Amino acid sequence: MRIVQLEENAKKNILSNLLKRDPNNYDSYADTVQQIVDDVKERQDAAVFEYTAKFDGAALDASNVRVTEAEIEEAMGLVEPSLLEVMKKSMKNIRDYHQKQVQHSWFDSKPDGTILGQKVTALESVGVYVPGGKAAYPSSVLMNIIPAEVAGVKHIVMVTPPGKDGKVNPVTLTAAHLAGATEVYKVGGAQAVAALAFGTESIPRVNKIVGPGNIFVALAKKAVYGHVSIDSIAGPSEILVLADETANPRFVAADLLSQAEHDELASAILVTTSMELAEKVSAQVDEFVKELSRKEILEKSLENFGYILVADNMEDAIDTANEIASEHLEIVTKNPFEVMTKIQNAGAIFIGEYSSEPLGDYFAGPNHVLPTNGTAKFFSPLGVDDFIKKSSIIYYSREALEPVHKDIIAFAEAEQLTAHANSIKVRFEE
Amino acid sequence: MRIVQLEENAKKNILSNLLKRDPNNYDSYADTVQQIVDDVKERQDAAVFEYTAKFDGAALDASNVRVTEAEIEEAMGLVEPSLLEVMKKSMKNIRDYHQKQVQHSWFDSKPDGTILGQKVTALESVGVYVPGGKAAYPSSVLMNIIPAEVAGVKHIVMVTPPGKDGKVNPVTLTAAHLAGATEVYKVGGAQAVAALAFGTESIPRVNKIVGPGNIFVALAKKAVYGHVSIDSIAGPSEILVLADETANPRFVAADLLSQAEHDELASAILVTTSMELAEKVSAQVDEFVKELSRKEILEKSLENFGYILVADNMEDAIDTANEIASEHLEIVTKNPFEVMTKIQNAGAIFIGEYSSEPLGDYFAGPNHVLPTNGTAKFFSPLGVDDFIKKSSIIYYSREALEPVHKDIIAFAEAEQLTAHANSIKVRFEE
Repeated sequence: MRIVQLEENAKKNILSNLLKRDPNNYDSYADTVQQIVDDVKERQDAAVFEYTAKFDGAALDASNVRVTEAEIEEAMGLVEPSLLEVMKKSMKNIRDYHQKQVQHSWFDSKPDGTILGQKVTALESVGVYVPGGKAAYPSSVLMNIIPAEVAGVKHIVMVTPPGKDGKVNPVTLTAAHLAGATEVYKVGGAQAVAALAFGTESIPRVNKIVGPGNIFVALAKKAVYGHVSIDSIAGPSEILVLADETANPRFVAADLLSQAEHDELASAILVTTSMELAEKVSAQVDEFVKELSRKEILEKSLENFGYILVADNMEDAIDTANEIASEHLEIVTKNPFEVMTKIQNAGAIFIGEYSSEPLGDYFAGPNHVLPTNGTAKFFSPLGVDDFIKKSSIIYYSREALEPVHKDIIAFAEAEQLTAHANSIKVRFEE
Repeated sequence: MRIVQLEENAKKNILSNLLKRDPNNYDSYADTVQQIVDDVKERQDAAVFEYTAKFDGAALDASNVRVTEAEIEEAMGLVEPSLLEVMKKSMKNIRDYHQKQVQHSWFDSKPDGTILGQKVTALESVGVYVPGGKAAYPSSVLMNIIPAEVAGVKHIVMVTPPGKDGKVNPVTLTAAHLAGATEVYKVGGAQAVAALAFGTESIPRVNKIVGPGNIFVALAKKAVYGHVSIDSIAGPSEILVLADETANPRFVAADLLSQAEHDELASAILVTTSMELAEKVSAQVDEFVKELSRKEILEKSLENFGYILVADNMEDAIDTANEIASEHLEIVTKNPFEVMTKIQNAGAIFIGEYSSEPLGDYFAGPNHVLPTNGTAKFFSPLGVDDFIKKSSIIYYSREALEPVHKDIIAFAEAEQLTAHANSIKVRFEE
């Protein structure tokens, strides 16, 4: 794995290289996606089933697009009991963590009768996109559905592309059922996003669409944003390990690879103050790659977006981590909690040498749907916040309004909004 | 003002009529906006100044695009002292309310050494768009900047289109300065949004862009979403008054007009259980319209999107309010607090006959930037939440990881992600 001395020019080049992975750079697909979205909006079910035949090779119609109780029961029977146990333990941790995110309505009152507050309401319905394809990702199902369920969303509508046989992977279906999906539809891609945004004869319209997907899904989410809400536009995965000479090179190398294996656009970066660690990690990464099953992906993503950066001091290393704003950040230093206080931008922060990234992906409880590609500068992990919205509450008595009513009239008139002013005036006519 | 009996068909027609106002329906401008955005991304300052000359008729360059200290001082001197006093009172209320929205970082620890938590960090920089044009809207400046300042945003960059003379309205500038803008640039439209999203030689790149604007601004915000965050895509304003026979028809009529005056796409709706009130309000609205200065706008918006709906009972009335999900909702009934508990969807809820909508626009403290056009089903008022983001915190000790490490390995292997499994395995090799 390549080692680069950290200096301004190198950093600039690396940052701009990483941003090449931005889903917004794939705008060439935007027209195709917009066509699919418009077509589904217009022709609804008919369009959805045509695209499902075309892209997934599955012949579905209104009679079988929705997963039945019997299909769920069948799926549950096909999952290994030991995996079921693990999923249940993981679910408990995810639920416990997200329950701590729950926000409450509040109000504040004054003796003159004023009440101001904020009412928290769960969204009524959400759509959860779950990728299909070769492998099943039940952890992703749990991470998307449980926060919605904790928030109190009534209708949790999952969509996922079917196989050619028109079936959904049994592990995916089991996870959906355990986590609390209220409906599951066998539809994927941009057509699934459009169906959830506008509704079709078979698929209900929802208020918000969450969940990761390929570039078509990402662009479709952006296209329907505003009609519905979306969680974010997910990019490829990434890890940044911040380490000093006390770090175990074997652990660091393994953790870098745990993200590099996702796909060829994934990025794995070590920023360290120790050249010795840099060299050991580099050698260890090469060793591990030989043994691991996803060798080709690992080689490509490391070649494209893998770096070991050697910094003069921890301050520079931290600045670089903040500039890159990685989805996953591991801190493996002498005083990792002190370093954490200086981290401004990261999706999830893993502290100390036993907090390896996959612990967060599968088990600890915090969400693994995290802002990617520098968006941790302004986006947050998926959580209960994504499934609620707020309304302001305003109550003034006559007694409270009277002493300030002339101020409000003056402000409205300064903006030349005379009907605004009038609405206060009429309340104090003799 | 037209009176309509509330029944399913009427409701359906009205809902679909209201949705015509959706900014997403103005996609015909999307290509023009995308061209401006791409051009500013590419040619930076040069493009910004060309568009400013073209659209605002102002000749600006790098030497005078940023508002100077001297210009601010001059502006402050031009504002009436009485208006300054009102603005300061209003600011205090806005700041007090938003301070209650501040969220704190938290963590939770267990005896085995586990620490899980959530770190709250303010965004480093935000851009605030303030419309220019004929009137100045200082209240909008306060409402957009104060929550950012309360959240702890370091760089609050305001942009607003200049007049032909290259100057910014003095009241706008005064409000920006009082509220805490750190920089103000004289640039508006899609070119301002693009400049904030990508940065130019003169205008800094920010993490998030907030603030209302015309359709060009709305579409530009959607175009840059993902590169930066945005608050929401603002549509035209609206009010829904929910009233029974106890309501004062004169107050209700005045309040309906307070929103109808914004523009021709604004919507004012009364939903009431009382035909008597309906008739009185209708007559009173017609009376007021004759006297008010923005008569033409009022007539058009009432004709396009104004309705008095008469419901059989309060339950139907409440359901309708929830379906419309109005930006502003006033409840003027016998027991308004009870009705409030049944409101699922509204930007801001005004309770009782002295809580008129302009009180919220100018003075009470809650934000007046609210979700419009049905988006209160999934969006919230602008607030401190918009200017922070969260990072998950995960710390496991060896003692905590050991008993569950095989579960994590099993879950990773079920997803065929062997490098994920490896990162746990290496930590427990003998």
